[in-house]
Amino acid sequence: MDRFLEDVAPGEVEIGGPTTITAAEIIAFGKAYDPQPFHTDPAAAKAGPFGSIIASGWHVAALVMRQIVDAAPYGATPILGMGIDELRWLAPVRPGDSLTARREITSVKRSASKPDRGVVKTRIDVTNQAGVTVMSMTTLTQMPARTIPGRA
Amino acid sequence: MDRFLEDVAPGEVEIGGPTTITAAEIIAFGKAYDPQPFHTDPAAAKAGPFGSIIASGWHVAALVMRQIVDAAPYGATPILGMGIDELRWLAPVRPGDSLTARREITSVKRSASKPDRGVVKTRIDVTNQAGVTVMSMTTLTQMPARTIPGRA
Repeated sequence: MDRFLEDVAPGEVEIGGPTTITAAEIIAFGKAYDPQPFHTDPAAAKAGPFGSIIASGWHVAALVMRQIVDAAPYGATPILGMGIDELRWLAPVRPGDSLTARREITSVKRSASKPDRGVVKTRIDVTNQAGVTVMSMTTLTQMPARTIPGRA
Repeated sequence: MDRFLEDVAPGEVEIGGPTTITAAEIIAFGKAYDPQPFHTDPAAAKAGPFGSIIASGWHVAALVMRQIVDAAPYGATPILGMGIDELRWLAPVRPGDSLTARREITSVKRSASKPDRGVVKTRIDVTNQAGVTVMSMTTLTQMPARTIPGRA
């Protein structure tokens, strides 16, 4: 079912995943977008401070986005990102890790200047298979409204 | 030259890019991480509100990361992301757009609890070939210190 601004409320919780990340994916993303040895070179990374390659933080964020799109929480209504607040990479993500994202809507606010839409804020906490939180952030998503107050 | 916490200061400015983004790249990233029609389906996107496919916001952020790594502003010192504050996607990025990122260090702070390192905050503004700002954010990067105060 397609959902609109009036259909969502603070406190709504969804769980995404788990998504398991492989060494090959970590290396491919790293080579494309974040080519540092601790993402792309298993031998160098093994000798480094993390002891293995770890995923680029942007890769982790992108996997969370994929979980959200796959869940389609708003039906066919597009998930249009306006921004991100307080993203924190809290622990390394290693090959074989399985990531689960808990998403909780924290605010829903209609735009004063453009009342046909609004902003949904969602707090996201990403944990690995050991229960360690590896990333957190708050997303700001633009949502279209079903109706405009005061109009027929 | 490898650089450390003592070597960087607020006001340091670097310009990255331009990086030109292609339709094929937008579609590939979208299919992998953000499979919504306005990223992956040119025909559907043409009929939609943007009039063409546009890049996933996470793709734009990842391209900026690639510019930073390629510039190697700290030599071989790793660029270790701690977090992102106030990321905003301000305008669509379309196939053929060329993105330039202006990066300005806004604060450098040694950790009180772990004085062998600190946090560098960098304000990043990404503009397209028309001078339109398409994304902005503040990155928090962990930097190792060259020396620890009070130690020989």
